[in-house]
Amino acid sequence: MLNGEKKIKRPLRWAMVGGGRLSQVGYKHRTGALRDNTAFQLVAGAFDIDPIRGKDFGMNIGVAEERCYPDYQTMFLEESRRDDGIEVVTIATPNGTHYEICKAALEADLHVICEKPLFFTSEEVLEIKSLAEEKGKIVGVTYGYSGNQMLLQMRAMIEKGAIGDIRIVELQYTHGFSSTEEADRFSDAQRWRVDPKIAGPSFVLGDLSTHTHYMSQLIMPHMKIKKLLCDRQSFISSRAPLEDNAYVLMHYENGAVGRMWTSSVNAGCMNGHRIRIVGSKASLEWWDSKSSELLYEIQGQPAQTLIRAMPYLDESCLADERLGALHVEGLSDAWANVYLKFAVAIDAKNRGDDKTLNQLVYPDIHAGLEGVPWVEHCVRSADQGGVWIDYQEVPEK
Amino acid sequence: MLNGEKKIKRPLRWAMVGGGRLSQVGYKHRTGALRDNTAFQLVAGAFDIDPIRGKDFGMNIGVAEERCYPDYQTMFLEESRRDDGIEVVTIATPNGTHYEICKAALEADLHVICEKPLFFTSEEVLEIKSLAEEKGKIVGVTYGYSGNQMLLQMRAMIEKGAIGDIRIVELQYTHGFSSTEEADRFSDAQRWRVDPKIAGPSFVLGDLSTHTHYMSQLIMPHMKIKKLLCDRQSFISSRAPLEDNAYVLMHYENGAVGRMWTSSVNAGCMNGHRIRIVGSKASLEWWDSKSSELLYEIQGQPAQTLIRAMPYLDESCLADERLGALHVEGLSDAWANVYLKFAVAIDAKNRGDDKTLNQLVYPDIHAGLEGVPWVEHCVRSADQGGVWIDYQEVPEK
Amino acid sequence: MLNGEKKIKRPLRWAMVGGGRLSQVGYKHRTGALRDNTAFQLVAGAFDIDPIRGKDFGMNIGVAEERCYPDYQTMFLEESRRDDGIEVVTIATPNGTHYEICKAALEADLHVICEKPLFFTSEEVLEIKSLAEEKGKIVGVTYGYSGNQMLLQMRAMIEKGAIGDIRIVELQYTHGFSSTEEADRFSDAQRWRVDPKIAGPSFVLGDLSTHTHYMSQLIMPHMKIKKLLCDRQSFISSRAPLEDNAYVLMHYENGAVGRMWTSSVNAGCMNGHRIRIVGSKASLEWWDSKSSELLYEIQGQPAQTLIRAMPYLDESCLADERLGALHVEGLSDAWANVYLKFAVAIDAKNRGDDKTLNQLVYPDIHAGLEGVPWVEHCVRSADQGGVWIDYQEVPEK
Amino acid sequence: MLNGEKKIKRPLRWAMVGGGRLSQVGYKHRTGALRDNTAFQLVAGAFDIDPIRGKDFGMNIGVAEERCYPDYQTMFLEESRRDDGIEVVTIATPNGTHYEICKAALEADLHVICEKPLFFTSEEVLEIKSLAEEKGKIVGVTYGYSGNQMLLQMRAMIEKGAIGDIRIVELQYTHGFSSTEEADRFSDAQRWRVDPKIAGPSFVLGDLSTHTHYMSQLIMPHMKIKKLLCDRQSFISSRAPLEDNAYVLMHYENGAVGRMWTSSVNAGCMNGHRIRIVGSKASLEWWDSKSSELLYEIQGQPAQTLIRAMPYLDESCLADERLGALHVEGLSDAWANVYLKFAVAIDAKNRGDDKTLNQLVYPDIHAGLEGVPWVEHCVRSADQGGVWIDYQEVPEK
Repeated sequence: MLNGEKKIKRPLRWAMVGGGRLSQVGYKHRTGALRDNTAFQLVAGAFDIDPIRGKDFGMNIGVAEERCYPDYQTMFLEESRRDDGIEVVTIATPNGTHYEICKAALEADLHVICEKPLFFTSEEVLEIKSLAEEKGKIVGVTYGYSGNQMLLQMRAMIEKGAIGDIRIVELQYTHGFSSTEEADRFSDAQRWRVDPKIAGPSFVLGDLSTHTHYMSQLIMPHMKIKKLLCDRQSFISSRAPLEDNAYVLMHYENGAVGRMWTSSVNAGCMNGHRIRIVGSKASLEWWDSKSSELLYEIQGQPAQTLIRAMPYLDESCLADERLGALHVEGLSDAWANVYLKFAVAIDAKNRGDDKTLNQLVYPDIHAGLEGVPWVEHCVRSADQGGVWIDYQEVPEK
Repeated sequence: MLNGEKKIKRPLRWAMVGGGRLSQVGYKHRTGALRDNTAFQLVAGAFDIDPIRGKDFGMNIGVAEERCYPDYQTMFLEESRRDDGIEVVTIATPNGTHYEICKAALEADLHVICEKPLFFTSEEVLEIKSLAEEKGKIVGVTYGYSGNQMLLQMRAMIEKGAIGDIRIVELQYTHGFSSTEEADRFSDAQRWRVDPKIAGPSFVLGDLSTHTHYMSQLIMPHMKIKKLLCDRQSFISSRAPLEDNAYVLMHYENGAVGRMWTSSVNAGCMNGHRIRIVGSKASLEWWDSKSSELLYEIQGQPAQTLIRAMPYLDESCLADERLGALHVEGLSDAWANVYLKFAVAIDAKNRGDDKTLNQLVYPDIHAGLEGVPWVEHCVRSADQGGVWIDYQEVPEK
Repeated sequence: MLNGEKKIKRPLRWAMVGGGRLSQVGYKHRTGALRDNTAFQLVAGAFDIDPIRGKDFGMNIGVAEERCYPDYQTMFLEESRRDDGIEVVTIATPNGTHYEICKAALEADLHVICEKPLFFTSEEVLEIKSLAEEKGKIVGVTYGYSGNQMLLQMRAMIEKGAIGDIRIVELQYTHGFSSTEEADRFSDAQRWRVDPKIAGPSFVLGDLSTHTHYMSQLIMPHMKIKKLLCDRQSFISSRAPLEDNAYVLMHYENGAVGRMWTSSVNAGCMNGHRIRIVGSKASLEWWDSKSSELLYEIQGQPAQTLIRAMPYLDESCLADERLGALHVEGLSDAWANVYLKFAVAIDAKNRGDDKTLNQLVYPDIHAGLEGVPWVEHCVRSADQGGVWIDYQEVPEK
Repeated sequence: MLNGEKKIKRPLRWAMVGGGRLSQVGYKHRTGALRDNTAFQLVAGAFDIDPIRGKDFGMNIGVAEERCYPDYQTMFLEESRRDDGIEVVTIATPNGTHYEICKAALEADLHVICEKPLFFTSEEVLEIKSLAEEKGKIVGVTYGYSGNQMLLQMRAMIEKGAIGDIRIVELQYTHGFSSTEEADRFSDAQRWRVDPKIAGPSFVLGDLSTHTHYMSQLIMPHMKIKKLLCDRQSFISSRAPLEDNAYVLMHYENGAVGRMWTSSVNAGCMNGHRIRIVGSKASLEWWDSKSSELLYEIQGQPAQTLIRAMPYLDESCLADERLGALHVEGLSDAWANVYLKFAVAIDAKNRGDDKTLNQLVYPDIHAGLEGVPWVEHCVRSADQGGVWIDYQEVPEK
């Protein structure tokens, strides 16, 4: 059980690019990273495309004035000249800038934590992966929900055979906040998401379902996709070619089948982030609006509801427990878990501790190596009319 | 509100073929038909393939000994010679016999009520439809769940624009009772369902999802399928070519998309019969394990739960109400509604009352004309490797 | 599993007093009694205080014109003169008439089935009990919900020690339909319920919570109340002295404690009929809006949801199963179970079969012997200012 | 919407007494206080009764070695000598020590934040209140759940008449973790809770239901109790006279009635913290295991589910929003809200800003002034045999 005591020698000196006052995700990053002040310390930032607003914001959250920078280039340069310069940077900017900032950060010898979807193409991921290896740095991807420990419970139960052989994988990440065209004009944050120049080749596939796809891999690390088919729509036509709804069918190597539904036009839906794994003898089901619970249904037996923090859970799940039974954990706690693992990974990398690195379950560059091509495959299938295409794993050399 | 008072002059003289002691559905038919003793009167039957067991059973439920027949041929012949002979017959036998019994019944000048899936091919449906028209008889299909009045509420709300334009149709009818091969040996009723000679070209597509497909048409009568794609599996390999799991994607004429998931290997699932209709401004969701409720989610507003029998419901929904608010209705009540409509339809047909017939919402031969080809399309798509195929409405001449 | 086959030699000739066109409960009685036409046959009735409306109604539900009587006195007299006269009568009239009609029916040598609350005083119950014994007749009380078989599952599990020693009994039967004074003017059925001359000494205590009190006794037959305290209110002052809300605290002989909340002013509540039994190691919880399920929570283990019709249930529960797993049963099915037991009890009584009678779990005169005094104790406690009073079992001689 | 930007000039210098490595609540305090590093800064502590373990722990969470003190007396003394000494201290020690530490802290001119239940007697609360006033200091009470913003939504809706006049107040805080005697031996934290010398005059009344009682006052500030009755039990007899289960009945000045159920022997219950307020036209219901939702049931209309962060909520509710719609907030976020209000209150107090103080809704010393006497009244009623006693507000001079 976590109680804030340090897991690494001293907190890492951390900065953010983006994530300022108008950002939807910036606060989630800080909430995760700074949960206990024993993993990260926020010492610098280029928080905003508007440097004045960015500096004002940075000072308001406790960053020294001189370390609130107008842009990431300046920050990387100036910080590299300090003895107490930053060691790791989070990139929380619109999708289209992830690649260049990530590259610049690695070249500035920084560990990187980046918002999803990591980049637009597999080639970019492979390039950054090589660069990170060369530099000996970690690249983490902030799949925040993936820090919910009940997913580790699912992973452990599946590994131990609790559901038998996996047959069916039901994935869903949907909401209805983009049901109207007006929604796109509501905020900067929504506007760029439907602009291919900034958002990349997809809207909801990249914005929503990459979370769920990664979580499915976390839960079932041995499952490999063999082929998939994607059918995508732009119900608000001004969003085309970017989709606001997509259906994906998948065949896995082991004979299992799966579906993903991702949508931002599932009108009124407030609990549409769900994972159900059906095995030959039982099923497991999780959804994030009730993420302190896990439904375990053995065919022919009473359905069971497993609850966070209870001693009957797997030790891998309990290891990330913070509040104890009866007390709801939410997205803040999941982000804290993810960021804590980033810190432990960075520390292990710095120390050359491969054993720790290999045991750690968290969204590293491999998550990107699986998420980006998955979206690419989906887009390619959809653009060919919703046909089946063979799944090509990205070669990791 | 229904209270058992007669809707037609006198109860119809009714018989069953099949539905005897070992049948899973026979009792549901009798529960529906005989709910109030003002719509049907059970006077004869060929209840069982074993004539002795059939007669014993028939007498045990109050049928006169001499009207418990060894087979349907004898029954149709003998009853036609009586002044008080049967007027309508229910066919509750395995799928492969529906067509021949239905034809014989119509030729014996009987109205027919038949278990789903009606027949195996569109040609058979068209032939029976012609014959029924020639004979001036009703052919009803027992989609029992479709009698739940909350579906009429959905229909009325959608027609009145409560959800805006339909965009997404999510359909699911799944359970896990066939998760193992042993399940097929459990009972006669399960065994024939996986035998193509008796069950026809599909298992769960015909056995389960035809219910849900019909219900979707009841709810959205104006929605026409443009093309579909079906991916089906036999997780228990001895069931091949019959599927125990299938995914269907659909495109509708109006630009909407939809999915059906049907399965008998969704291990542990006990509430997997669901319908969600997403519109441009709101969604409606129904599931049969909570069929006295309806979820109405308007984007940007609090979610609403509509409850059976409440005055705010549409009059078409309230017209089928029996028990009143606070009191759960279940499958028995849904079957009673369906059978009452059969009785009203038969009576109207006998009287040549087309107005009543045209207003009545119930599963008649047109339900078969849509359900059978839907399964045919699914099987064809699946057998070609899960490809998109254009949807051909069956010409009604 | 019940499938409609006869449980007794031939259906009993049955009549109703009350329960006509304007009655809220009449249809529930017929739905229960006539479910399979093998237990009861409706042959006569004095359905309405308005004889013309009553006759019209009776003929509409299939009763012969000459057996639709203007009042119960005439019915009892005329029927007693027929060879095929009625054998059993249901009393579904306002509370204030139960006693006199029940007495008259027994004196006419009829078995009796009576709406709850049976009578107003324990003395009346004792008198009727003696008369019934003298006449060799059954007096059943229609606690319709009590026919839900999941209550038998609770009974069996508790008896087998599944929850350990009973410590806490949480009972609730509340709704909000009388939240305003206008509600009392809405219908005859509601109006008399708040008139002490017709309703007796209580409104919701007798109208609602007697159901739940009986069900608690069915579930825990060995639990005896030692003392209780009742606090009752008339939020709509015109209802005083009759309460529209009441709280009851109870101490049981074994050291357990309990509460009942009954209310018709629990605004908006549509699922307020609940029972939770807490034991030393686990709890069981049931509520009627989801009466095909049972929640079983063992301290320290995952919560279990038991579902109707599944093979893991107790055989006493499965014996009353009609529809099978996946299919919702509702109030109709519960009433059918209760009425079937009335029929079996009457038949056994007629045959002098005490063994069957003793094994049968159903609401007989003893239910009245416990329900009526329970309300009396509540009213007495409340009228003394909500004080504890010792519970006096009614002496059964 | 909160995003971590500072609400006060600079973070307050903060210390803890207790809350060390073995504490159940210490981490919740730090999680709340240090959420954004703009409200509090943890600079000192006397974390443990074992000074060595306490120092080790303090250093592990980033406190300077020399400011990890062996006991609170030393800390208050030493810190008072520093220019950068602590300004506010949190007391997270067993109940029996709250009073003396609180008094010492105030005498050392510190603001105080104290675990509930504040003290054992009303006299103690009055004395501390006077001392705090004299010293010009804030005394906050950590009712952590009360920071959930949906409670402010309830408060706003009730104030605006959304449910009409309050009639019924249903309160529950129960779990089953103390169902066995073994539970008392499980941990130090549980052991002292059933020892009257340390825990005070009650177990669950003080440990659990004071939370819920305070929350009810936050929601309905105008409701005053007129009389109450408490019935308490020690199902594990070794706990006597301390109760592990209690029922409370309440009458309010306005004619409303209410109940509290608090228990640590509600076996298996994992979602037993609930509040339902019934008004003359609608009800509101909240429970902490689903604290991002609020059920709003208007009699005669569809039930509504309000969801956190949605624009239709009251601005007072939205003001405490951190994560936005679709993202679950849990107990961490509630504690962060409570601690942020403590910071704002302390800052306002320091600046003499009464306007801010008067508008702030948070658990200050008045919460103690209501919670402590409420428990006293309950205990007194219970000890007299569960009788009604008039409620005496504690005079605030």
